[in-house]
Amino acid sequence: MLIVQKYGGTSVGTPERIQRVAQRVARARRAGHDLVIVVSAMADATDDLIALAAKVVPNARKDHPRELDMLLTAGERIAMALLAMAIRELGVEAISLTGSQAAIITDETHTGARIQEVRATRVREELNAGRVVIVAGFQGVSRLTKEVTTLGRGGSDTTAVALAAALPADRCDIYTDVDGVYTSDPRRVKNARLIPRIDFQEMVELATSGAQVMHPRAVEIGARYNVPIRVLSSFHDDDEVGTLITMRDETMEGLALTGLACEGGYARLSFHGLPPDMAVTTDILERLAKGRISVDMLAHVERADGRRQLQITIPEDALAEGKPLCEQLLKQHGGESIEVKPGMTRVALVGSGMYGLPGVYARTYTALSAAGIEVHAVSSSSISISLLVESGDEDRSLQILHQAFDLGETNK
Amino acid sequence: MLIVQKYGGTSVGTPERIQRVAQRVARARRAGHDLVIVVSAMADATDDLIALAAKVVPNARKDHPRELDMLLTAGERIAMALLAMAIRELGVEAISLTGSQAAIITDETHTGARIQEVRATRVREELNAGRVVIVAGFQGVSRLTKEVTTLGRGGSDTTAVALAAALPADRCDIYTDVDGVYTSDPRRVKNARLIPRIDFQEMVELATSGAQVMHPRAVEIGARYNVPIRVLSSFHDDDEVGTLITMRDETMEGLALTGLACEGGYARLSFHGLPPDMAVTTDILERLAKGRISVDMLAHVERADGRRQLQITIPEDALAEGKPLCEQLLKQHGGESIEVKPGMTRVALVGSGMYGLPGVYARTYTALSAAGIEVHAVSSSSISISLLVESGDEDRSLQILHQAFDLGETNK
Repeated sequence: MLIVQKYGGTSVGTPERIQRVAQRVARARRAGHDLVIVVSAMADATDDLIALAAKVVPNARKDHPRELDMLLTAGERIAMALLAMAIRELGVEAISLTGSQAAIITDETHTGARIQEVRATRVREELNAGRVVIVAGFQGVSRLTKEVTTLGRGGSDTTAVALAAALPADRCDIYTDVDGVYTSDPRRVKNARLIPRIDFQEMVELATSGAQVMHPRAVEIGARYNVPIRVLSSFHDDDEVGTLITMRDETMEGLALTGLACEGGYARLSFHGLPPDMAVTTDILERLAKGRISVDMLAHVERADGRRQLQITIPEDALAEGKPLCEQLLKQHGGESIEVKPGMTRVALVGSGMYGLPGVYARTYTALSAAGIEVHAVSSSSISISLLVESGDEDRSLQILHQAFDLGETNK
Repeated sequence: MLIVQKYGGTSVGTPERIQRVAQRVARARRAGHDLVIVVSAMADATDDLIALAAKVVPNARKDHPRELDMLLTAGERIAMALLAMAIRELGVEAISLTGSQAAIITDETHTGARIQEVRATRVREELNAGRVVIVAGFQGVSRLTKEVTTLGRGGSDTTAVALAAALPADRCDIYTDVDGVYTSDPRRVKNARLIPRIDFQEMVELATSGAQVMHPRAVEIGARYNVPIRVLSSFHDDDEVGTLITMRDETMEGLALTGLACEGGYARLSFHGLPPDMAVTTDILERLAKGRISVDMLAHVERADGRRQLQITIPEDALAEGKPLCEQLLKQHGGESIEVKPGMTRVALVGSGMYGLPGVYARTYTALSAAGIEVHAVSSSSISISLLVESGDEDRSLQILHQAFDLGETNK
């Protein structure tokens, strides 16, 4: 099998851990697999470089993005060279390649580039020569200007899955510091259960709803090119555990709920008494978008007098700009008042089995209201329900919903 | 003027020093100069990376040279990106380029590559666009395999002078932590004097004889392409001091002596009573060369009985291999005995004025013998004399010779 393995910063955080990863790679190689290893910078290395830049200039990201990328790419360079040495030391041929050498082609956006194409010729050549190929995660080379770029958050996961799609590899294994994807955060929900298999869309919903285990960008690429992804721990020797993320197929149980995730730091903004005109809502959304304020949940309802209630959630840290803008918009459109409620968390219930299944809302609301937890907003897709609760109720909401949907038990 | 400036690791050792270098560069730019800045890794950065590699594998240099180069090149990458940010922060356009982006083409020898060619197209383009161009020192890209290489000791000086030759630049300024080239080591000879101007050949002699201020490789390139080189301190604001290294011309005084340098760590090996056959000497030198033992000073004299005395100096740390090899050679060729004298230092007197000048040897030997310092071997070129003394006499020899040739005074 041709397998892409990705190791995050914690997995290669010390010389000893690098040696351990090397042993795992050597075992897989000796078991007959062809291997491409995508590696992040050693734990804290990227933060250390950012701190160093902050001592030289006040805002490197904003004012010197090209040079910041040049700086940050030193991080993976160090990790991948050390890992290549450690693997070679075990008698296994290996070579490290930068994002540029591995032809990870991106757009021109420094510090947040998007992968446009992976020309895996060199990687394939090195594989054919019998080598384990180590590729720097998080970095690429821009198509037009041939500049060094970085991919921003979740970059190394994205490199791994995009490489797996381009080769194509049989599977992409994401090694991390947790055992896999859980029904909810195990640190907060006592009997959270490891999900052995999940489909791409569910995983995207969980990842975009605050599950830290994998970045949604990477999962989306996996879904588009149908690359089976496995999430598993680099701290166990048993390779057979973890969570497999694949296309939905007939053998998968239609569970009402697969997992729960949550993300805090939201504020709810309510516009009271807007005029009954679709153009008003449209204008407000457009102006917020122009101000680069991202709207998460959106609801609007009509009052008895015909006027409208518009309710949105935005990141709390966008309030400083967002609140005065909304006040100005309210005034301009002749609305009555505006109400801001910070300190909110979005809890997401995810499960492709919930579509068309009666009683999911009822079960959710029954459980929460019995516990005195108020739902301040609700939103849904075909495979998920998002609920806005006060951040103080965050942990309790997870526990109660986990219980209400029997996620802790094997509910097949 | 188009000037290449090179800053060593100490000069960019901290964020504050990087800011200071940026200010110097900005001043020169505002004075109307076009600038290419060659930068080393921040002080200790390279040593830290080597130490990190040593925690992962026992001998990276020997066993994984390609990956060691990949690792070490992270060092200049960090320094040059930070310097580019600091310069841009002062409102001066700047861009950093890796050795590969600046097309520093080398041979394929990892960890000790030689520059074969500098294709300065990209550097010229960036200069024409009005930018200060920052180039990573010490690194290049190999001609055939396009791999990342490093140049070994003195690499950043070499990058700077080679770039200056290729552009061509009007001058190459080497900023370092000393004020320039001195008549002898100022830490050891109290009234050592800064040499304002020296010719390439004298500088090569001084550099190969232990003067640490500049690497002989770089000086040799300067000589070949006639690039005037200035050595000066990055810790003073006065740019007009320092030492100018140029071609010898008529305006330069024919001093008997320009400077003194010394290098310890040698051992003298004496072969007594070798047969009177040139082939024996040849064989001994060939076998030492095959054993990769470099012979520094060499002398052979004939005894009254016709047999030969052969005397060589080799690095002390080559004794472990060199001594048994020499004993074997003695036996094989039927010599009488061998004598080893470790703990020796080679002191070099350098000055292009000494050629044909009578009395230089006499003055040297008179001064040393009056002080009870024995010369254990002697060797000379047209512009230098090398003397082997016991390492315990090293400092005293420098002081006495400095005095004997009036180097402390302005002896024009």
